[in-house]
Amino acid sequence: MRAICFYSDYGYQDDFAGTCRAVIKRLVPSAEVIDVTHGIAAHDVLGGAFVLRNTLPYMPEGAVHLAVVDPGVGGPRRALVLRGGGGRLFVGPDNGLLVLAAEADDGIAAAYELTNRELWLTPVSATFHGRDIFAPVAAWLANGKPVEQCGRTVDPASLVRLDVPEACIEEGVLYATALLVDRFGNVALNVRQEQLDAAALGDRLEVICGGECYLAQVAATFRGVRRSDILVLIDSYGQVAVAVNEGSAADVLSLRPGDAVALRRARE
Amino acid sequence: MRAICFYSDYGYQDDFAGTCRAVIKRLVPSAEVIDVTHGIAAHDVLGGAFVLRNTLPYMPEGAVHLAVVDPGVGGPRRALVLRGGGGRLFVGPDNGLLVLAAEADDGIAAAYELTNRELWLTPVSATFHGRDIFAPVAAWLANGKPVEQCGRTVDPASLVRLDVPEACIEEGVLYATALLVDRFGNVALNVRQEQLDAAALGDRLEVICGGECYLAQVAATFRGVRRSDILVLIDSYGQVAVAVNEGSAADVLSLRPGDAVALRRARE
Amino acid sequence: MRAICFYSDYGYQDDFAGTCRAVIKRLVPSAEVIDVTHGIAAHDVLGGAFVLRNTLPYMPEGAVHLAVVDPGVGGPRRALVLRGGGGRLFVGPDNGLLVLAAEADDGIAAAYELTNRELWLTPVSATFHGRDIFAPVAAWLANGKPVEQCGRTVDPASLVRLDVPEACIEEGVLYATALLVDRFGNVALNVRQEQLDAAALGDRLEVICGGECYLAQVAATFRGVRRSDILVLIDSYGQVAVAVNEGSAADVLSLRPGDAVALRRARE
Repeated sequence: MRAICFYSDYGYQDDFAGTCRAVIKRLVPSAEVIDVTHGIAAHDVLGGAFVLRNTLPYMPEGAVHLAVVDPGVGGPRRALVLRGGGGRLFVGPDNGLLVLAAEADDGIAAAYELTNRELWLTPVSATFHGRDIFAPVAAWLANGKPVEQCGRTVDPASLVRLDVPEACIEEGVLYATALLVDRFGNVALNVRQEQLDAAALGDRLEVICGGECYLAQVAATFRGVRRSDILVLIDSYGQVAVAVNEGSAADVLSLRPGDAVALRRARE
Repeated sequence: MRAICFYSDYGYQDDFAGTCRAVIKRLVPSAEVIDVTHGIAAHDVLGGAFVLRNTLPYMPEGAVHLAVVDPGVGGPRRALVLRGGGGRLFVGPDNGLLVLAAEADDGIAAAYELTNRELWLTPVSATFHGRDIFAPVAAWLANGKPVEQCGRTVDPASLVRLDVPEACIEEGVLYATALLVDRFGNVALNVRQEQLDAAALGDRLEVICGGECYLAQVAATFRGVRRSDILVLIDSYGQVAVAVNEGSAADVLSLRPGDAVALRRARE
Repeated sequence: MRAICFYSDYGYQDDFAGTCRAVIKRLVPSAEVIDVTHGIAAHDVLGGAFVLRNTLPYMPEGAVHLAVVDPGVGGPRRALVLRGGGGRLFVGPDNGLLVLAAEADDGIAAAYELTNRELWLTPVSATFHGRDIFAPVAAWLANGKPVEQCGRTVDPASLVRLDVPEACIEEGVLYATALLVDRFGNVALNVRQEQLDAAALGDRLEVICGGECYLAQVAATFRGVRRSDILVLIDSYGQVAVAVNEGSAADVLSLRPGDAVALRRARE
C-alpha cells in the first residue's frame, strides 16, 4: 500500500477535501491519506507547486502525491499521473502543479494522461475532478495497481510548465520575487542560500519593495534580532525568506506572492 | 466496523472537532473517522443539512454520519439517531439537520431518541453534546452495536423539519434562494437542473439580487466564459449555482446564504 | 502503540502540521495521529497550555501529547519530554506550554531534555523543530520506545512556568482575565465554578471590561436567556465564560485573550 499525500486549494470551509477523502476510503478502506494541506491559496498553481516540491523529502517513500489546484477544470487541460525516478507518483492537472516536485524525485520517468474512465466515478462533473477523477485514480494507485493502466503515455516534454520567476543579480542588487506567505507572515523568495551567498551582500541589507526601502539583518534564527526587527533568513525549506521577529513581514512590508523584492547591501 | 463521517460547524480554530475525534478513538481505537468538514457556517442548520445530503453518495456504504450544528444544545431539543432505508445511520440533534440526508438514504426507516445514558460520557456538559453524547454514541454504533439500544423509538413524523425554501416560476421569472457559498465564492441556489430547464430561460440570463441586475451566461464549465464574466451552471452536486470565472460570485453579487435571487431571460 | 495527540499554532494555511504528520507516518506507518487542533493563536503559549490541559481527560490513555507553540524556536529554550504520573507523555518546547497539562496528569513524574540527536531528522533547521525534532521524537515514543533514551534528565523544578493570571475577589468584585476566545465568540475566564460560587454574586451580574459595563445573567445554558442577551456560564471545560446567546461575546464586549474582566453583583 502506498500512502496518499493530499494537497489542494480546497480550503476547510467546504466539504471538498473531505469528500475526496471519503471517495478514497470508499474504494480502498485501508488507504492511508495524509492531508498535507488544503490551504494553498485559491487557484495559486505556482504556490502549490512550491509547497509540493518543498515538502517532498518529508513524505513517505513511494507515496502517491495527489495535488489539486485546478482553475482549468472542465476545460481542455489534461489530467495526469507522473512517475518520478525515485518511485513516487503524482496525480493532478496538467497545469505545471506537479512538474517541479516530480523533477525533484529524480526526474520524470514517465507521464500518462488519465484516460481510463473505468477508474473514475460516474458521472464525471464538469467542475470537481478532484472527487470524480483524481481521488479515485489515487486510491487505485495507492492499492498498488500499475500506473500504466491509468491512461496513455505522453511525452514529458509536452507537459505544461510554469513560468517560474528566476532571481538575478545586477550591479550588486539581488532581484527576487515573493513566492509564498505563511500564516506567521514570513515571505519566502525565489532565492536559495547559494544565490544569497553568491551575491555577497553582507549582514545588513536593504529590502526594497512596493516603492519602500527597509533595513534588515541576515540572521540564522528569530532569536538573533530584536522584537519587530526585519530579518532575512534561510527558512526551514532552504528558501531565503523575509521575516519580522514576533511580527508579520507580509503585513509590515505589504508583501504578497508574486511581488517583486530587491535586496542590496545597506549603506553604512 | 462502520466508518464515521463527521460534519460540524465547530471550525478549526478550537479543539472541538479534535476532541470529539479523540473521544471516539478512546472508545474504539480502530474507528475510522472521516472529517468531511467542520467548516459549516456557525449555527447554519440549513446549510449543514444540504452539505450532508449532497455528499451522501460519496460516503462509504453503511457509514455513521455524525453531524453537529446545534444552536439548541442544552435546551429541550432531542438528540437523535436515524436509520436510513439504505443502511446508513445519522447521529445528531433534532433540529432538521439530519432529515434531508436520511430521506435521501431511501427514507427514514427508524428514528430513536438518544436516552441510553450508559453510552454517554459522564458528566454531560450543558454546551458540548458533540463530545459528551453524539461522539460516544457514534463510536458505539461504528463498532457494530445495535441502534435500538441507543434509546427509545420515536415517530419519524415527529422529527423537526427545516423550512426549506422552494424555488418557483412566475411569469417567466425563477424565484430562488441562495443556499451555500463555497470558498471560491460560488453560490448554490435551491434550484435543480430540471427546474432550470423547465423555466426555459435560454442561455443569456439576468440575475436579480439585492436590488441589482446582472447579466449572466448559462455554461457547462468555467471555461465557457471570459474572465470575470458571471455564469449560471450546474455545480458538482447537481445544484444550479451562480459563479464568476476566476472570481467570487458572492463578492461580485454581494450574496449570502438565505438571500433571494431571481433569474429571468435577458432582454435582447 | 501510544496514540499521538497533536496540538499546535501551525494553522491550516500552510503545510506545517501536515508535514509533521507525514514525518511521523514515514517513521512509524501504523502511528495513530489525532489532530486535536492547529488553530491555537500564533505564539499564544498560555492559550495553548490551557487547551492542552482542558482536553487532557478526553484524550486516549497513555497518549503522546505533541504540542508546538514555539516562538523561541532556534534560541536557547530547551526541547522537552515530560512523563506524567498518569502515564502520559508530553513533547514540546520548554516555555511553559506543557506544564499545566503534565501536572494535571498526576504531576510531573520525570522530565528530560531532548538531546539524543539520533532520534531527530538531519539536518535540523533553525525554525521548524516541530518537523525536525518534536515529531520524530513523538513517533519514536508512540512506538513504545523508552522515554529515558530521548535525552538527559532535568529537574522538574527547572522547567519554565507560565505566569498564569489568578482571579481574585476584592470588596465584592471578582477580578478575572480572559483566557480563550472560541469560534463562537465565547470568552473563557481564569475562573472556576468554585470561585464564582465563593464570590456569591447572585444571578444578575455586571461585567466590566474595556471601560464599559454590561448586564449579564448567570445561566446553565444558552436556552436560559433571550437572543442577544449576555450570559455568564460554566463552559464545557468547567471554566466560567462570558457568552452571548446566538451572538459573539468577543465582538459584543470587545474582548481578547489577556484582557481584564471584572464581575460584580448587578445593582437592583
